[in-house]
Amino acid sequence: MSVRTLRIGLCGLGTVGQGVWKHLTADRPELEARLGVKLELARGAVRNPKKRRSVRIPASKLTTDALAIARDPSIDIVCELVGGTDLAREITLEALRRGKVVVSANKALICAHGAEIFATAREHGGRFLFEASVAGGIPIIKALREGLVANRFPLIYGILNGTCNYILTQMEERDAPYTQVLGDAKRLGYAEADESLDVEGWDAAHKASVLAYLAHGVWVRPEQMIVEGIARITPADFKNANALGFGIKLLAVIWRDFETNELSVRVHPTLLPESHVVAKVNGVFNAISVQGDVVGTTLYIGRGAGQDATASAVISDIVDAVALLRRQKGEMIDGDFIETTARRQAPPRIAPPEHIEGRYYLRLTVEDKPGVLSAIAAVTARQHVSIASVIQSPAERAGAASLVLTTHRSNERALRNTIARLRRLRPVLEEPVLLRIAEFPE
Amino acid sequence: MSVRTLRIGLCGLGTVGQGVWKHLTADRPELEARLGVKLELARGAVRNPKKRRSVRIPASKLTTDALAIARDPSIDIVCELVGGTDLAREITLEALRRGKVVVSANKALICAHGAEIFATAREHGGRFLFEASVAGGIPIIKALREGLVANRFPLIYGILNGTCNYILTQMEERDAPYTQVLGDAKRLGYAEADESLDVEGWDAAHKASVLAYLAHGVWVRPEQMIVEGIARITPADFKNANALGFGIKLLAVIWRDFETNELSVRVHPTLLPESHVVAKVNGVFNAISVQGDVVGTTLYIGRGAGQDATASAVISDIVDAVALLRRQKGEMIDGDFIETTARRQAPPRIAPPEHIEGRYYLRLTVEDKPGVLSAIAAVTARQHVSIASVIQSPAERAGAASLVLTTHRSNERALRNTIARLRRLRPVLEEPVLLRIAEFPE
Ligand SMILES: NC(=O)c1ccc[n+]([C@@H]2O[C@H](COP(=O)([O-])OP(=O)(O)OC[C@H]3O[C@@H](n4cnc5c(N)ncnc54)[C@H](OP(=O)(O)O)[C@@H]3O)[C@@H](O)[C@H]2O)c1
Ligand SMILES: NC(=O)c1ccc[n+]([C@@H]2O[C@H](COP(=O)([O-])OP(=O)(O)OC[C@H]3O[C@@H](n4cnc5c(N)ncnc54)[C@H](OP(=O)(O)O)[C@@H]3O)[C@@H](O)[C@H]2O)c1
Repeated sequence: MSVRTLRIGLCGLGTVGQGVWKHLTADRPELEARLGVKLELARGAVRNPKKRRSVRIPASKLTTDALAIARDPSIDIVCELVGGTDLAREITLEALRRGKVVVSANKALICAHGAEIFATAREHGGRFLFEASVAGGIPIIKALREGLVANRFPLIYGILNGTCNYILTQMEERDAPYTQVLGDAKRLGYAEADESLDVEGWDAAHKASVLAYLAHGVWVRPEQMIVEGIARITPADFKNANALGFGIKLLAVIWRDFETNELSVRVHPTLLPESHVVAKVNGVFNAISVQGDVVGTTLYIGRGAGQDATASAVISDIVDAVALLRRQKGEMIDGDFIETTARRQAPPRIAPPEHIEGRYYLRLTVEDKPGVLSAIAAVTARQHVSIASVIQSPAERAGAASLVLTTHRSNERALRNTIARLRRLRPVLEEPVLLRIAEFPE
Repeated sequence: MSVRTLRIGLCGLGTVGQGVWKHLTADRPELEARLGVKLELARGAVRNPKKRRSVRIPASKLTTDALAIARDPSIDIVCELVGGTDLAREITLEALRRGKVVVSANKALICAHGAEIFATAREHGGRFLFEASVAGGIPIIKALREGLVANRFPLIYGILNGTCNYILTQMEERDAPYTQVLGDAKRLGYAEADESLDVEGWDAAHKASVLAYLAHGVWVRPEQMIVEGIARITPADFKNANALGFGIKLLAVIWRDFETNELSVRVHPTLLPESHVVAKVNGVFNAISVQGDVVGTTLYIGRGAGQDATASAVISDIVDAVALLRRQKGEMIDGDFIETTARRQAPPRIAPPEHIEGRYYLRLTVEDKPGVLSAIAAVTARQHVSIASVIQSPAERAGAASLVLTTHRSNERALRNTIARLRRLRPVLEEPVLLRIAEFPE
């Protein structure tokens, strides 16, 4: 019996692409023996073929035309590792239209064009695999789609951005301000030159969107989420949080109420009880807590990015691609590949802010004079936001005080209104800082 | 196109079997729509058909002849949920010989007869799936076999027995002795009437054997492992451990040295640094830390047992079984199903005790009189075991003292010899208690 050769094209040989090339080259004999096929790293696309790379790639295999790889009829598996949402989209759609399997690590692409990508895959019998797009080497996509297939997911939350977690961990450990830690993180390669996608929460939002689709079958755009970053957190916030028994993590939260059929997806810095396992997940590590209605809570922790961890995930998708491709084309059945584990019920609506409940931490920088607290308390009372605790301390700014309020259970609408009104109070000197207090079960 | 019906037989309708029946009945329409097949819960085998069960099962579907289900040509998927290793083995082999897919939660069976089971599956084109056998609802088998397929595994360790973890957690929290906590655990249903399989470490050893096969391709029998239980741990051990900055967990450890090609599998109570995430995993929860050579460390936490969590895992295997069965028989290729992720290199040898290194905690109950410590120190020095710290305190027993030694790095052989000699010292009044100190990376 002749052994089939499957040809792989890598569009993009940057951080991730080179990792895939390196590890796949090392693993190839092993994987071939195990899978019963030959695997050929057939072609690679880059912007600059002259660039020095950490892996040896024959010049004859390199092209600057990534779309040529997507269209090449001899290529079975296309890895889209160029990043961005324009060329990446074209590569993906061109390959799927030809019934190929596309493997991608690109959460921004999936968040922006996931609906179109999956529709194209369905129409043309292509397959789109994306384990590496969320939480690097942690096989969370496979866990949700296959391992936990018997479950519905009322709550998924976690640390999805390693850069932010690194910065927050360093701020807390070194008692250092955000800008200083960010600068160090850039020098050490833990943050990109343009950090905004990470620190403003957009990268985590893209990943939350991917998980929300997988779990609930709807595409939630970042504009429909609450997305808040970490740039306004100060060392004082860590001290206040610690005094209250909490740590601070940037969490993505995907919450579904199956009674009302409402869904909320949000990304925000969150006070987590210090004893919570997720509060112990430090540095560049990611963590995802999944509440399943049958299995209960399972938690997954690991490196969320980096060349090797991401390559590990891409290679696992390539192995799954081999299993899909070994069957005859006509035989690929819908159920071969579960696009979303959402039940075939009415898709959820986005929950309005007044239905998103929780407790809050609010830090205000105010004039240090009598009567200020009572003016603030009058505002919160009018919004039915009930105060649980107050910590007052000198602010960095001369003549100012820092007021930290925690609230009893309230909701996003009430807090939004509260902040809008607090902003207009004369003694409130700076934009209020609002953090959420987690009320998740362990 | 006519939709194929796949018929499922459940051998055993106890805790797990009834959970599978319940959730599969609830999920069936959903799974059928998603998978493109009909699923029929066709038959169930029990010892006593008159027993009241929590699910309604038509009498016509029940039999007391579990082997008849395994042999029934109309049954495609056989779930072996009877437990034990005799009937369970027969059911499994009979079904595999007929090319069926067998789904099992039975780690004792796999540990005892795994080699025969997988050989039978290979010979006859059957498939054996066992996600539920380790760590309940955590999809750890799928993670190792598929999600982390690009990795080799120098170290896998974790909390694999929920009963022991519950007992240890309660002992620490309530400062209560082992026998009292065990009694309470039995009353609350967290421990079996015969607790020995759990508390002596055998259940965790069975699970470690399953993971070791998956990762390294060799069957390690419990007799080839170091297996120590939790029965001799006292509240004083928790106090001593805490004073040294540790918690105590029953860990299974699967360690492979790829240089020397040696493997060690062991189960023993272990001092873990309090700050270690696994040290925070309390109650009936399981945790598995997997070190992959490409991905780094990933960690998985969740409920390790119980009707629902285990059913979640069995159902995910049934869904995988559907994917395997939908292909024509002749088409099932070896690579469809990866039995072990071990590389095709020489299988590892079992590491001799002198190659298993680490630090140790040794508690001795000794006569409270001068010269005892120096006699003990002479013994350890002769075995080249170097003492790192000593805590002396009054023992419960009158006229006795408790001596807690921690060692610098040593090995199992040296400690075994040390203990054999200490036992013979007249002032040593009781069997020494030896705990390992974890030296794992986070
Ligand atoms: N880095 C991580 O740790 C990580 C983790 C998870 C997911 N991801 C995702 O993985 C994807 C790739 O990330 P990365 O870090 O590997 O990016 P990168 O280092 O910037 O690499 C991008 C690669 O694409 C090539 N490329 C860009 N534009 C091209 C064009 N027009 N034509 C041909 N080739 C082009 C580049 O060529 P040159 O080399 O010639 O410039 C480079 O090889 C992104 O979607 C990212 O979000 C990354
Ligand atoms: N319980 C858990 O949380 C858990 C978790 C993970 C894995 N597991 C594994 O799952 C397996 C099943 O455990 P379980 O807790 O469900 O056990 P169980 O409650 O004792 O149920 C065993 C079932 O098998 C039936 N059975 C026993 N002997 C039989 C015979 N000779 N002929 C026909 N039927 C027979 C029993 O019938 P009757 O009902 O009539 O007595 C009962 O329905 C075991 O291998 C266990 O290690 C259990």
